[in-house]
Amino acid sequence: MSGPDDGIDGTGAAGPAGTALRVHVGPKAPEPLVEAVRGAGAAIVPADEAEALVWFGGPADELRTYLHPGVRWVQLPSAGVESYLAAGVLTGDRVFTSAAGCYAHSVAEHTLAMMLAAARRLPELARARTWTSPEPVSLRGARVVIVGAGGIGQALIALLGPFDADIVAITRSGRAVPGARVCTTPDRLHDVLADADFVVVAAPSTARTSALVGARELALMPSTAWLVNVARGTLVDTDAVVAALRSGEIGGAALDVTDPEPLPDGHPLWSERRALITPHSANPLSLRLPRLAERVGHNTARFARGEPLEGVVDPSAGY
Amino acid sequence: MSGPDDGIDGTGAAGPAGTALRVHVGPKAPEPLVEAVRGAGAAIVPADEAEALVWFGGPADELRTYLHPGVRWVQLPSAGVESYLAAGVLTGDRVFTSAAGCYAHSVAEHTLAMMLAAARRLPELARARTWTSPEPVSLRGARVVIVGAGGIGQALIALLGPFDADIVAITRSGRAVPGARVCTTPDRLHDVLADADFVVVAAPSTARTSALVGARELALMPSTAWLVNVARGTLVDTDAVVAALRSGEIGGAALDVTDPEPLPDGHPLWSERRALITPHSANPLSLRLPRLAERVGHNTARFARGEPLEGVVDPSAGY
Repeated sequence: MSGPDDGIDGTGAAGPAGTALRVHVGPKAPEPLVEAVRGAGAAIVPADEAEALVWFGGPADELRTYLHPGVRWVQLPSAGVESYLAAGVLTGDRVFTSAAGCYAHSVAEHTLAMMLAAARRLPELARARTWTSPEPVSLRGARVVIVGAGGIGQALIALLGPFDADIVAITRSGRAVPGARVCTTPDRLHDVLADADFVVVAAPSTARTSALVGARELALMPSTAWLVNVARGTLVDTDAVVAALRSGEIGGAALDVTDPEPLPDGHPLWSERRALITPHSANPLSLRLPRLAERVGHNTARFARGEPLEGVVDPSAGY
Repeated sequence: MSGPDDGIDGTGAAGPAGTALRVHVGPKAPEPLVEAVRGAGAAIVPADEAEALVWFGGPADELRTYLHPGVRWVQLPSAGVESYLAAGVLTGDRVFTSAAGCYAHSVAEHTLAMMLAAARRLPELARARTWTSPEPVSLRGARVVIVGAGGIGQALIALLGPFDADIVAITRSGRAVPGARVCTTPDRLHDVLADADFVVVAAPSTARTSALVGARELALMPSTAWLVNVARGTLVDTDAVVAALRSGEIGGAALDVTDPEPLPDGHPLWSERRALITPHSANPLSLRLPRLAERVGHNTARFARGEPLEGVVDPSAGY
């Protein structure tokens, strides 16, 4: 079925034998990534023979041991590259690409799922054992404050398009975010919370964003508004959320990330009527792997042809 | 604050006093409908002085007692007009308008909420009291069979736009439905079920659609596929759904309508792990009223100006 020049055999070859790009996938080699490399006409080779490395399944500092001088390009598996920066492996003598942009849709989809569930009272209805009279609301025209309107926020704005939602996008720079009515900076957060139906936390986890949403912010939200966190648990003060749910200060909380995480058994959030906890499942490996495989395939083909790659990391900028 | 010619006072007047359209809202008169009539410059009057009637809150056969010869236009509160047809009140000597098209978005939104909840395992996660490892899937590229792709189905297709879903639209005529990859007729239902991730039932309730989805149809669906019913409970064989859930023949069932309805306490569906029951809450009065008020306002203004109305009923066609 396969031959030396069909590009999908074990030795791999885009052109005549010996000219195929030599790629190592490791330390783990999931089938979708291996298939993506071969599908792009490259050959899978041992690490010490590789010109390119698709890094998967190992810690950032282990990567160093794979980086011999022949490796000219490294595809990293994550969207953020903080751990690789911290490990000091992102040097300027070769090209590194990340999965930036690959995973935003899945997290945005999970965010929309939680927002719609909140609006339609699905957490309470899923637990009901009798026919009730809920009071659902509609997402049509909903006022959504997106704290940290990066890739996930922009993917969420796309999904909210058909709902004519009224978007406030908060970014560090306050730059224009397509689809947002208001674009502003974190220092204006307190001014926009009172007009929110949903406050979506999608900002990166940094020293500046720790406990970004606490008792004061929750108090500023309307009593019908939902807090949605799909970023990191540390961006939200968990105890303050429990208190706000108990006092009715907010309408509810949908949290895909928690602090502490995993949320321990018996934690009060598990039994709050208007809370929905998902176990950091917005973007599990099963959904990430197909997207990463797409990038691996595209970038392998581009590297082999000498074309620009997607998701090139700028080590000096940190992303 | 109000005067005889500002169009929003109690006597109502779009032009000089005495020329305002005379509208009765009844037998019940919710504030949003009254406001919509007044906002369009018409006057609220007793039923026996009315030229136009906004019918709300009464049974179809009671409508007859309001229809004196002076009533030239009747706005009905529902999208379907079967009960008015059956009551014999839809005569050709005056104009009747329905709420057709007003409510589709809300039902479609509820449908999407249930589909996303199913994909992201929210029914199970909402009931969990411990950190688990669910296996969510994505709606991106999902294969969705819409049984009865009318107004609700088309509104759902619009909401699914950003997900690049693969839509099969089933209509009585098999007519082209924008956004659907395949458009076909009910006799082809069995041919398309095996390739569905979601089977959405949104068809009208008629003798031909009774128990449209039963044991045979459920057996044809993939074991991971979800059944979603937002039409009427009678379109689906409830016992067959319970059996299919227990045997793992389908992935799950999200039902906004049931048979019997309300679903009685202790019914096995309440305790099925992969079932989500919402109590006919896709389009509650709280969400209908604003949409109906919009139509009332638009149609009142149009009728006053002698312009064509929205949602005109053709009694001979039955809708």
